[in-house]
Amino acid sequence: MSVTAAEGFVASGLHAGIKARRHDMALLATEDRRPVPCAAVFTQNKFAAPPVEHDRAVLAANGGVAAAIVVNSGNANAGTGKPGRADAERMGAAAAKAAGVAAGDMLVCSTGIIGTLLPMDKILTAIPSLAGQLSRDGGSDAALGILTTDSVAKEAVIEGSTFTLGGMVKGCGMIAPNMATMLAFLTTDAAVERDVLQRILADAADRTFNTLNVDGATSTNDSAFLLASGRRGPCDVDELADAVHRLCEDLTHQMALDAEGMTKLVRLKVVGAASDAEARAAAKSIAENNLVKCSWYGSDPYWGRLLAAAGSAGIAFETERSSVAYGGIPVALAGAPIDHDAAAVTEHMKRKEVDIIVDLGLGAGAAQVIGIDLGPGYIKENSVTS
Amino acid sequence: MSVTAAEGFVASGLHAGIKARRHDMALLATEDRRPVPCAAVFTQNKFAAPPVEHDRAVLAANGGVAAAIVVNSGNANAGTGKPGRADAERMGAAAAKAAGVAAGDMLVCSTGIIGTLLPMDKILTAIPSLAGQLSRDGGSDAALGILTTDSVAKEAVIEGSTFTLGGMVKGCGMIAPNMATMLAFLTTDAAVERDVLQRILADAADRTFNTLNVDGATSTNDSAFLLASGRRGPCDVDELADAVHRLCEDLTHQMALDAEGMTKLVRLKVVGAASDAEARAAAKSIAENNLVKCSWYGSDPYWGRLLAAAGSAGIAFETERSSVAYGGIPVALAGAPIDHDAAAVTEHMKRKEVDIIVDLGLGAGAAQVIGIDLGPGYIKENSVTS
Repeated sequence: MSVTAAEGFVASGLHAGIKARRHDMALLATEDRRPVPCAAVFTQNKFAAPPVEHDRAVLAANGGVAAAIVVNSGNANAGTGKPGRADAERMGAAAAKAAGVAAGDMLVCSTGIIGTLLPMDKILTAIPSLAGQLSRDGGSDAALGILTTDSVAKEAVIEGSTFTLGGMVKGCGMIAPNMATMLAFLTTDAAVERDVLQRILADAADRTFNTLNVDGATSTNDSAFLLASGRRGPCDVDELADAVHRLCEDLTHQMALDAEGMTKLVRLKVVGAASDAEARAAAKSIAENNLVKCSWYGSDPYWGRLLAAAGSAGIAFETERSSVAYGGIPVALAGAPIDHDAAAVTEHMKRKEVDIIVDLGLGAGAAQVIGIDLGPGYIKENSVTS
Repeated sequence: MSVTAAEGFVASGLHAGIKARRHDMALLATEDRRPVPCAAVFTQNKFAAPPVEHDRAVLAANGGVAAAIVVNSGNANAGTGKPGRADAERMGAAAAKAAGVAAGDMLVCSTGIIGTLLPMDKILTAIPSLAGQLSRDGGSDAALGILTTDSVAKEAVIEGSTFTLGGMVKGCGMIAPNMATMLAFLTTDAAVERDVLQRILADAADRTFNTLNVDGATSTNDSAFLLASGRRGPCDVDELADAVHRLCEDLTHQMALDAEGMTKLVRLKVVGAASDAEARAAAKSIAENNLVKCSWYGSDPYWGRLLAAAGSAGIAFETERSSVAYGGIPVALAGAPIDHDAAAVTEHMKRKEVDIIVDLGLGAGAAQVIGIDLGPGYIKENSVTS
């Protein structure tokens, strides 16, 4: 129900046969089929998939509005060249016709394997049913229709004082800062101008989705959208921005807990860097380091690997100013080990959610990322094409 | 025998008790205990270990010569602060006294776990025996004494027309461009000026050691040395440079085949980049991408992941100009799949050594790296402190 919690939106989801069994298509539309302001952020990967190129073109042409978004999972329509671009157009046109919206206001998303053409027969056959099932109750089916290797649907709703905000996401692998292989669809019934909406979404994505680093890989298909139906009129913009931020934070946490092969989520704070940008670079270097990730999997507080990753991040770093704490317990100061309650650190490291602070001792720069451990489950999931 | 194959060098190796069972110390010295020109390259990690700081200071003070190098494995003496620096000095001074060389001409190397002080009692107890065993026959013992998680010793010898060149290395994890956690000791009996020797070593390391990328991690302790005893007089400098390059290539291949948890070695060429630097950046991004590495482990020619990694490398990239070939067989052209002999690709991917070419189709920039797959063995080796 989440993506249809806000007034003015309907949705649906079903099994079209792209995947073997589970739901693999979703449709989100405005209740009256009219376009509404739509903020969007996309992957920064230059190997962007045809649906991303399609959506960028649509939003550039119509000034940033959308009446509906059609989604398929199981096949990313990426690495498919010109035929893939034509397929994205046909998928959008068919969904627009079936749902009764203008083709120029229809967005398209795909997620799944790369390098294989979409099974267009299955998609075109399913689209009329998908449109026919659009309803206020269809949010949960839509949330299932966008999943790939996700094990659970990921939804959230926040009630503001004068608006409702809801959303659904998918994503569990190929996730590195900048939203790799994740799709997010947020809706609100507040009336907000497109520019304001875009600023709110971009800012929230930067502080939430873009801090999640599952595997350092940036996807070809990442897209996040925020649509505002306006049904309940103007709202306090700061309140909405705060709500969007909290909703994205909640959805990011849900994705982290469902990351491919994960056994541990690590909130990694880097403080004391020369600047926020350097703190982000250090946090990224640490969170993507396989030796660090393996130590997290093994619940091993091997702080030396964290400083080794920070020391090779291309930032200002001085060994004798660096310290590391696990669960609030300092284990290294001035780049060297110190006496500490090893049993308490071990106990903390065995948790599913771990907190680590790396203090570079140089300045006021700070950043936080959510890192994921690297265990056998990740390899099992990614060593053969699913 | 490798490191003592060239005239004028003696070596030894033994078990000091730092590791449970295997050899864990080595000593390399000139036969007459006099200093000779010594080229050196070190880790670029700012979290460099005390022995690296010690060696940099020694070579800066004495103008780039060395009479001996003492090595321990099992403990990197990294992340050990001021006490670690003092330990490196004591280890060097003790070895210099026992071997009969000036303390200012003694280099020190350590490799192993980070963040724990050296067991100095064991090291100081073993040093007199280590010095007493120095001999022309001690090369093989020395090659064992420098190993950490390596499963085999790594040695090579090249006979030049007027000189002999030999060497030993260790390294199998925490290896990314720029030589992480590897130690290399090369010797020759040619007479070469220090500046020429340095240029030869730096160039060879850049084209060999620095192209090996096991896990994207840069170590705290990397060091490579080339000593020239001069016993057999001047040589053809170009011939020596070529021999050093080929020797380093051989040793790099030995390290790749012994990489932690490896089942597959991938020679990855990126061509058609806008510049050599952009080709290197793309090759690094691909070789470090866990989704790519998992596909190599699974013998899965999932070319889309390679282009996705290249597309997020921050370089010039155009989907419709990009192509990928496995074992010389093109599987993708213009960013889209093409018909190909799938059985032949599958057969190639099952080999232990795989060749992949990614052509960006933009310019003349090219680079090659040696990448390693990511399988359960790597995680097993690195999830708990050994």
